[in-house]
Amino acid sequence: MTNPTAAILIIGNEILSGRTQDVNVQFIAKRLADLGIRLAEVRVVPDIPVRIIGAVNELRAAYTMLFTTGGIGPTHDDITSECIAAAFGVPWEHHAETFALMAARLGDRFNAARQRMATMPRGAVPIRNEASLAPGFSIGNVHVMAGVPRIMQSMFLALEPELPRGTPIAMRAVYGIGVLEGSIAAGLSAIQDRFPGLDLGSYPFKREDDKWGVALVAKGTDTAALDSAIVECTTLIKAQGVAPVQGEPN
Amino acid sequence: MTNPTAAILIIGNEILSGRTQDVNVQFIAKRLADLGIRLAEVRVVPDIPVRIIGAVNELRAAYTMLFTTGGIGPTHDDITSECIAAAFGVPWEHHAETFALMAARLGDRFNAARQRMATMPRGAVPIRNEASLAPGFSIGNVHVMAGVPRIMQSMFLALEPELPRGTPIAMRAVYGIGVLEGSIAAGLSAIQDRFPGLDLGSYPFKREDDKWGVALVAKGTDTAALDSAIVECTTLIKAQGVAPVQGEPN
Repeated sequence: MTNPTAAILIIGNEILSGRTQDVNVQFIAKRLADLGIRLAEVRVVPDIPVRIIGAVNELRAAYTMLFTTGGIGPTHDDITSECIAAAFGVPWEHHAETFALMAARLGDRFNAARQRMATMPRGAVPIRNEASLAPGFSIGNVHVMAGVPRIMQSMFLALEPELPRGTPIAMRAVYGIGVLEGSIAAGLSAIQDRFPGLDLGSYPFKREDDKWGVALVAKGTDTAALDSAIVECTTLIKAQGVAPVQGEPN
Repeated sequence: MTNPTAAILIIGNEILSGRTQDVNVQFIAKRLADLGIRLAEVRVVPDIPVRIIGAVNELRAAYTMLFTTGGIGPTHDDITSECIAAAFGVPWEHHAETFALMAARLGDRFNAARQRMATMPRGAVPIRNEASLAPGFSIGNVHVMAGVPRIMQSMFLALEPELPRGTPIAMRAVYGIGVLEGSIAAGLSAIQDRFPGLDLGSYPFKREDDKWGVALVAKGTDTAALDSAIVECTTLIKAQGVAPVQGEPN
């Protein structure tokens, strides 16, 4: 695939401690698929400068673009912004326009802590959004967003028009309740071989009524091939004596 | 901290496509904290051998132990096991005991696809568990588990007694509804300075009734210091004219 590629870096002690269930990856992943951007890696690192700086430089070099979430608030543990500056080797300084905007809106409440949120790597472009006065920012191919899902989503949507795009990555799925993976593996492998441009996946699941089933999922940019592959997967499930369930992947 | 460290490697096209919401990280993270093992990194990589092998070798060298989830089923996209063998530079071969066990239980259904699940890197020790006949396995400091949460959890619990332990990592939290991070940042930073052995985090949240609040979370192995730090955080919230809410971190 010649689609652009992306990575997500989650700066998140709260994810690593188990305190918080991340939901940002799934939101970003779905949006990226629609934009034709292939999400190729996700990392979660703790709020430690050397770890953040190292991961930013590795991932921004490896992929077309990098999204970070978390660590851009006003408190002592919000160190993403200065780490991005260090990663790029540029000064971390007041962003004049953002500084003026926040000062005008916040008045007396624009204290030293909040001024940190108007401080960015030199050359950064703010990601203004509807959910927060303090913006995220982009620098080079790195897009720095909040960790709070509602704010992150607003920032991502504001950013979307600026992102390079590829051919949308579509998915098709068919489900077989009571079908065991081990019984269809050979047939599925043969289908994958006939559609080398697609990613065919097999995902077992247990339903709430304790019945096992398997989801066969085809993913790729060639929708005609996707449709054909799913027809073959449907036949494979039927051959197990089971009525296949078509549906959106979920 | 001298506690052992860990990383999680998720082998998961289905996470990167946004099809599946990962829930394994949070489960493992919480268990590790209780065991006194510090989760220091999480990565998600696609089902591509060079990516899996590279990540396994990087992470097993960097941390006391590595847990992988996903890719150990019977289908063509389940390539974790042979990639682990490649990462360790050992043959990937039938595990005699597991092979015999599965053959006895499955009879005629023990086809080539299912035999893959009895095939492991030489030297691997199976992780037998209650949820699946096909085991996970450990080799060196790498523990290879299923991606389906119910099976992964069963494997992790079976593995737990074998893991090296440290001092349990505890958390305390106090919540301030209506408190803004920017107003308490300086005070919180001063508390962090007085408790250098703890991780103090500040996490804003929006409740269902649309009220913003902030969670102050202290994490560490010294429970007396945790209690003292949370008393100071409680005072900090009170100073904002807000009644603090004590509670388990959530």
